[in-house]
Amino acid sequence: MTELDLAIRGGTVVTAADSVRADIGIRDGRIVAIADRLEGAAREIDATGLLALPGGIDSHVHIAQAAGTGIVMADDFASATAAAAAGGNTLVMPFALQARGTSLREAVQAYRGLAEGRCYVDVAMHMIVSDASPGVLGQELPSLVKDGYTSFKVFMTYDDLVLSDRELLQVFDVARREGALVMVHCEGYDAIRFLTERLEREGRTAPYYHAVSRPEIVEREAAHRAISHAELVDVPIMIVHVSGREAMEQVRWAQARGLKVYAETCPQYITLTAEDLRDAGVEMSGAKYVCSPPPREAESHAAIWEGLVQGVFQTFSSDHCPFRYDDPAGKLTPRGRTSFRWVPNGIPGIETRLPILFSEGVSKGRISLQRFVELSSTNHARIYGLTRKGSIAVGYDADIALWDPTRRETIRQEILHHGADYTPWEGFEVVGWPVTTILRGEVIAEAGRVVGTPGQGRILDRQPR
Amino acid sequence: MTELDLAIRGGTVVTAADSVRADIGIRDGRIVAIADRLEGAAREIDATGLLALPGGIDSHVHIAQAAGTGIVMADDFASATAAAAAGGNTLVMPFALQARGTSLREAVQAYRGLAEGRCYVDVAMHMIVSDASPGVLGQELPSLVKDGYTSFKVFMTYDDLVLSDRELLQVFDVARREGALVMVHCEGYDAIRFLTERLEREGRTAPYYHAVSRPEIVEREAAHRAISHAELVDVPIMIVHVSGREAMEQVRWAQARGLKVYAETCPQYITLTAEDLRDAGVEMSGAKYVCSPPPREAESHAAIWEGLVQGVFQTFSSDHCPFRYDDPAGKLTPRGRTSFRWVPNGIPGIETRLPILFSEGVSKGRISLQRFVELSSTNHARIYGLTRKGSIAVGYDADIALWDPTRRETIRQEILHHGADYTPWEGFEVVGWPVTTILRGEVIAEAGRVVGTPGQGRILDRQPR
Amino acid sequence: MTELDLAIRGGTVVTAADSVRADIGIRDGRIVAIADRLEGAAREIDATGLLALPGGIDSHVHIAQAAGTGIVMADDFASATAAAAAGGNTLVMPFALQARGTSLREAVQAYRGLAEGRCYVDVAMHMIVSDASPGVLGQELPSLVKDGYTSFKVFMTYDDLVLSDRELLQVFDVARREGALVMVHCEGYDAIRFLTERLEREGRTAPYYHAVSRPEIVEREAAHRAISHAELVDVPIMIVHVSGREAMEQVRWAQARGLKVYAETCPQYITLTAEDLRDAGVEMSGAKYVCSPPPREAESHAAIWEGLVQGVFQTFSSDHCPFRYDDPAGKLTPRGRTSFRWVPNGIPGIETRLPILFSEGVSKGRISLQRFVELSSTNHARIYGLTRKGSIAVGYDADIALWDPTRRETIRQEILHHGADYTPWEGFEVVGWPVTTILRGEVIAEAGRVVGTPGQGRILDRQPR
Amino acid sequence: MTELDLAIRGGTVVTAADSVRADIGIRDGRIVAIADRLEGAAREIDATGLLALPGGIDSHVHIAQAAGTGIVMADDFASATAAAAAGGNTLVMPFALQARGTSLREAVQAYRGLAEGRCYVDVAMHMIVSDASPGVLGQELPSLVKDGYTSFKVFMTYDDLVLSDRELLQVFDVARREGALVMVHCEGYDAIRFLTERLEREGRTAPYYHAVSRPEIVEREAAHRAISHAELVDVPIMIVHVSGREAMEQVRWAQARGLKVYAETCPQYITLTAEDLRDAGVEMSGAKYVCSPPPREAESHAAIWEGLVQGVFQTFSSDHCPFRYDDPAGKLTPRGRTSFRWVPNGIPGIETRLPILFSEGVSKGRISLQRFVELSSTNHARIYGLTRKGSIAVGYDADIALWDPTRRETIRQEILHHGADYTPWEGFEVVGWPVTTILRGEVIAEAGRVVGTPGQGRILDRQPR
Repeated sequence: MTELDLAIRGGTVVTAADSVRADIGIRDGRIVAIADRLEGAAREIDATGLLALPGGIDSHVHIAQAAGTGIVMADDFASATAAAAAGGNTLVMPFALQARGTSLREAVQAYRGLAEGRCYVDVAMHMIVSDASPGVLGQELPSLVKDGYTSFKVFMTYDDLVLSDRELLQVFDVARREGALVMVHCEGYDAIRFLTERLEREGRTAPYYHAVSRPEIVEREAAHRAISHAELVDVPIMIVHVSGREAMEQVRWAQARGLKVYAETCPQYITLTAEDLRDAGVEMSGAKYVCSPPPREAESHAAIWEGLVQGVFQTFSSDHCPFRYDDPAGKLTPRGRTSFRWVPNGIPGIETRLPILFSEGVSKGRISLQRFVELSSTNHARIYGLTRKGSIAVGYDADIALWDPTRRETIRQEILHHGADYTPWEGFEVVGWPVTTILRGEVIAEAGRVVGTPGQGRILDRQPR
Repeated sequence: MTELDLAIRGGTVVTAADSVRADIGIRDGRIVAIADRLEGAAREIDATGLLALPGGIDSHVHIAQAAGTGIVMADDFASATAAAAAGGNTLVMPFALQARGTSLREAVQAYRGLAEGRCYVDVAMHMIVSDASPGVLGQELPSLVKDGYTSFKVFMTYDDLVLSDRELLQVFDVARREGALVMVHCEGYDAIRFLTERLEREGRTAPYYHAVSRPEIVEREAAHRAISHAELVDVPIMIVHVSGREAMEQVRWAQARGLKVYAETCPQYITLTAEDLRDAGVEMSGAKYVCSPPPREAESHAAIWEGLVQGVFQTFSSDHCPFRYDDPAGKLTPRGRTSFRWVPNGIPGIETRLPILFSEGVSKGRISLQRFVELSSTNHARIYGLTRKGSIAVGYDADIALWDPTRRETIRQEILHHGADYTPWEGFEVVGWPVTTILRGEVIAEAGRVVGTPGQGRILDRQPR
Repeated sequence: MTELDLAIRGGTVVTAADSVRADIGIRDGRIVAIADRLEGAAREIDATGLLALPGGIDSHVHIAQAAGTGIVMADDFASATAAAAAGGNTLVMPFALQARGTSLREAVQAYRGLAEGRCYVDVAMHMIVSDASPGVLGQELPSLVKDGYTSFKVFMTYDDLVLSDRELLQVFDVARREGALVMVHCEGYDAIRFLTERLEREGRTAPYYHAVSRPEIVEREAAHRAISHAELVDVPIMIVHVSGREAMEQVRWAQARGLKVYAETCPQYITLTAEDLRDAGVEMSGAKYVCSPPPREAESHAAIWEGLVQGVFQTFSSDHCPFRYDDPAGKLTPRGRTSFRWVPNGIPGIETRLPILFSEGVSKGRISLQRFVELSSTNHARIYGLTRKGSIAVGYDADIALWDPTRRETIRQEILHHGADYTPWEGFEVVGWPVTTILRGEVIAEAGRVVGTPGQGRILDRQPR
Repeated sequence: MTELDLAIRGGTVVTAADSVRADIGIRDGRIVAIADRLEGAAREIDATGLLALPGGIDSHVHIAQAAGTGIVMADDFASATAAAAAGGNTLVMPFALQARGTSLREAVQAYRGLAEGRCYVDVAMHMIVSDASPGVLGQELPSLVKDGYTSFKVFMTYDDLVLSDRELLQVFDVARREGALVMVHCEGYDAIRFLTERLEREGRTAPYYHAVSRPEIVEREAAHRAISHAELVDVPIMIVHVSGREAMEQVRWAQARGLKVYAETCPQYITLTAEDLRDAGVEMSGAKYVCSPPPREAESHAAIWEGLVQGVFQTFSSDHCPFRYDDPAGKLTPRGRTSFRWVPNGIPGIETRLPILFSEGVSKGRISLQRFVELSSTNHARIYGLTRKGSIAVGYDADIALWDPTRRETIRQEILHHGADYTPWEGFEVVGWPVTTILRGEVIAEAGRVVGTPGQGRILDRQPR
């Protein structure tokens, strides 16, 4: 065997298939050997007592994205990817957002420009299609898929993003032809409007009513609709951020019929509840928890765990969408104080996703390490076409997170690296923590500090299916 | 007992609960006695060997309704209700159709004007709400419900009729507040458009492709959506003309959850198939079978029977919607020859509904006489608020059809009374036939002849729930 | 119309189909007329303000039945049928129990002998087959069915009664050939033994552990097994006394598959819970509630109501099985004090069944009067082949209960007529009460007093299907 | 890295998680390195163009087992394990069968004696518990589990093997306490007897009626029963050889409820049908296909694939159970000619299992290589507690099969190594074939020849869960 740049020695190497005591040999950023004993490497990391897991992949994050008139997202690529690295991730997938009436390709290029040279972890970009014009469907989208942007998200709600059913079908049809994957935000626009208008008429405008305005039925109906459209067109889809039993049962029903319906869930749906949105006092800190779909009742957590354990869900993402709470152009604008409807939807979570899943899942005995690796990394890579990512195997990129499975930690804003000024999990206690993150053979985070350099992360293109 | 105007003697009186040998005594148009022996009536009808059933109620018929630019429906109130009477019915429920941008009340008044003085059987009018403007929702609809128009239909498809989800929710909300019942035509507009455009691009425009353009998924998705909206608003709905297993299973699912979801099916869905639309030759007789939802595969018939037997369906209606085939403004216009998209949707069936259900259901042993009575009459009365209708009981209107359960008949256009110039069931053989129809104590049809007079049928108002 | 013996005037006549204001004319014990006004009868009953319902039929009662070594049931035919009459019933169906190794025909004859000349209401007898010997299967059972004993019950548990699966199949097969209906007590014998032995080893012998020894899984498994056997043999069955969601969902599943599976439930499963068995003090009054299946958790009540409302259940019976609590040969023998296993299973309920269903169902708005009539009378008659019973219709026996729907009453042992010395519903408040019971045209109970005479009730034979 | 005994070079290494181009380094029978390039090994195998898969594990085979009075199984350990090796397997799991009334431990020891020194592949032994006596339950079973026999099979049918429900529950209870896994043969004994007796009375005794005597309902009922018992006791179970949709849906239902119910299926249920049992001529070759559960209808194959693709099934085994057809003490004894009831149940399949799954699954695009590895090897190891088996990973035993994924082969008896004199798949064409089998670093089969030596295979003990 030729010389190694780095050997990670003495750890337990975990993949979706196995956990074995082995050394990992790395050369030129790739894993070139996994062996009982690898000596003579240029550099060694002692992983004794640690788990070597595939670096986390977060396939659903919002970074530096326009979030409505005048509202500013709290993370740029530098801060978001630094936080990702600190949280045990080596790859994130944000969204290049097309504003209506503009060119999708230009949006992609501009967004890529924001990322170039700034990232601490690798990045692969989804697109958001908000304008299904003939030009977008006929030219831009197919050509962008060919260029490696092989996944895009569509919305069934939000004023500026919602597509009609006809547009959804057309986008699905393009995805089928081009071999791309469509991610679907399933909440019914009209039902939300109907409920929101009623709540506002009744003066129920505090942050809590955000949850009331988007009940599970609304998510379930949209999930059924998206599934039906996908069945009609005969194309796989990914239903993102499933929040409770109602939508989950639609996914399970579809999967049992043999439809290729993937589903994702997020930390907020196993830890937060609608009650967290209650504070409507001067602080109005309930607004900190406003995201869509909203957190549900506590019983809902059991339903989501059922889906995680039984394989209804393939991916566990953060849906990171950070706003500063102290910023009048952030989470709680003056207008946002007048109604939940103007509070931007989204919470930060890029850095806390993996410890929460590890602790609540693995440490509490709900899921195996193998399932953790699948949900946090491997399945993201498989589903989104990231070859050489998502596992610890010869030939793969040496994207590795070393975890201390017994370390107790309390999540606090002060130890995080994201751009938001709060975390919804302030004070949340976990067992299991990522202590070192390695991107293509280089340590980028260690002992709570980000030690990589901006630009070390690459922007990856992918192949259509 | 005071004197009787009429006694129906010697028949078997059938209700949703029982079948008993009894005489029926009638006075002033009402049933005043059911007894083992009633003598001394002013007039007697010998029903020996016959079944005395509650007169059929057809709660879903289209009469003299505008059907698109320049297309003329084949029945006015006189011909439609004459045909209904000949087919064993004593009450039909057509639709007062609001054209977009016009007053609903004016539409109702105009439509009522068409019916006044012309009907052979009683009539109760639904409305079709095609324009959910604030005025309609806020004033017209509530006041019309109070005036006795307690049911209205909404469409999830058709260019001129489709409501958005928000409008559906608003209409449902009005129904909840006013105690009205909403009937929903469940097919997804956007999906049909998407498929139709694709078929037309491919040159697949023959009548058969009508069925291809509206597959079961499209009906199922819309059914799920309507059910979700109804659950959100907490209002009962009636899903009309369910055509196959997919939509039926949604209804069954909703009912098992305890939702108040009623469902209707029609003769076409237990007898016709998409193959009937195949003829695309010079005659293009496939067009004769174009209706929506379209007839499905043969296996679908078993699914619909399952729903009829198990109680998933409460009503069996005709969805009568007649066009003349020889009329260039009827079923097959020059434009209709160019694409299925321009063939008006609908088939005649007001006169043949009951013999088909009796023969295929009762005579073939699939359902009991009690279930027949429920599906053909009682449940229509209960669900649509027609007190004193739908049963043979003291105090009820003497609306009775005498049936010969053993009579064999072949359905042929030449024996029918409707305004259409064909029947989709030409040559269809049945066992069991209505031989005499009695409306409020007066014989209106007998031995295949209509013997009543126009105007004998009344226009009925109803009470909100 | 010829002369009437009795006219019930001014009441509201309720059947499974209708509720109408009408007089009922009776001659020779039969209903001969239902009319708006019937005058000149030999006798009149003023039913103004009352409901005239079909007399209750209780198709599941245990009377004067051997209940294990030395234990004496608290009712003979006189007391049980007097109580039935007082509770608004006109027909009960007890069980002629075959002891193993004895002749079924002799058991039937002996049991009939106990009833002859003693009954206040009509009686139709089921049999219990505990010994599926070739003679019973090949000769006795077929000949008894032909003689009018067209229904029999089999047990999947109890030492002296349990049949093996092979015997169940053989009995089902006889039922199919002879046109009889099999009622099945669904609880798995072996599982109960397994659990009972474990509980006894652990010293958990108080009455409460009776409920623990027969959890819902045990009932569900047996229900699935019985359904499978019935599907294999292709025969209808009746699953009796379904107690909770688990077994109910099996029935629903079977019915949705088109299998002819009927199901029954009882008052205890909508009102009592396992907590009622808790008292294990000196009184040990928890024993008063020991019946099988045991009452479940409170949430279970909602499941049973779901089945009652949605039509999963066809009949609502008492499973009356009375023991005296103060009798050392009754509910709580010295041996019974040592373990729940020796407490005879069964509670009294023949007299309270109808008020409980009326009050909890009709008065609380859960079910309609029509559904009440079906569940309490009509469906029992239809399913068990009692022609001329179960409705108020011309030609039917004049079995009628007059109810005051607004009367408030508190159930107390002191107002009851059964042989037991307690009621599980002591202090239970109801709205709606049967005030007069009429058997074949004769008043047998009135104002809380039984006014009929023993022997007035007949023993009825039935026809195979 | 220290010296290697063997390097497998240039192949594609496949695990349940990944497929990578890598060399495999082996020392002392273990995998010590997986690397891009491993040179200087004592011996090299060129795997260019081949797949290196984990050696197949067949967790359900019958070898040298008593099969009823006077009937001789066609394989001893030598022939069976030779055939296994030739078919790409490195480990098989046969059953030490306890005859009723005998000691389980003695049975295990005797059976182990048959295997010692004769096996070509590794062996881990399950037990069959046919006599649930107190001694077996209380002493033998617990102590045998502690000794490493951590799985046992119970039967719900067969005269000599069937356990009562109580015995099943007791065995399950021991498994729960001892951390063992129970495999359950789910077919209802009594129902089979009932049907068999009926068929024999009707003279329907040809092999085909074997299939008629064990319909899917019988399997489904037993599956539900086993699941219920497992739920009651709270213990995981493995339902073996699931044959069709009915039983599979019970498993899916159980899994969705969160129960730990594993399920297995076999090649016969995706390739054979009941029609294969039809030949009842002089040859009576239908008998060759008699196994239990029997092959079903052709539509059933799709159901089983659904379960394989969607993860309802975890393992794919052969249920190898070989008899010689030309042996009067084998598949078709004189007595067997008189009725299907005397034909021993079982078909040979140890050697053909993997090519059939690979070809029908991987080559036809129904499943991925990862799913193939799980179904054929990894999951068997995980579920049955075989650490260091079932994957290609550092520290694991070097049990590897090299496959040529493109090789076309026709299954013929003449190329097989088992002791049977026929294969049910004679003439079956496959794409994909195992060309070399390596057991703990030693080649044991190559190019269709078995090159290992008897005794090379070890008998493995396992740890309780």
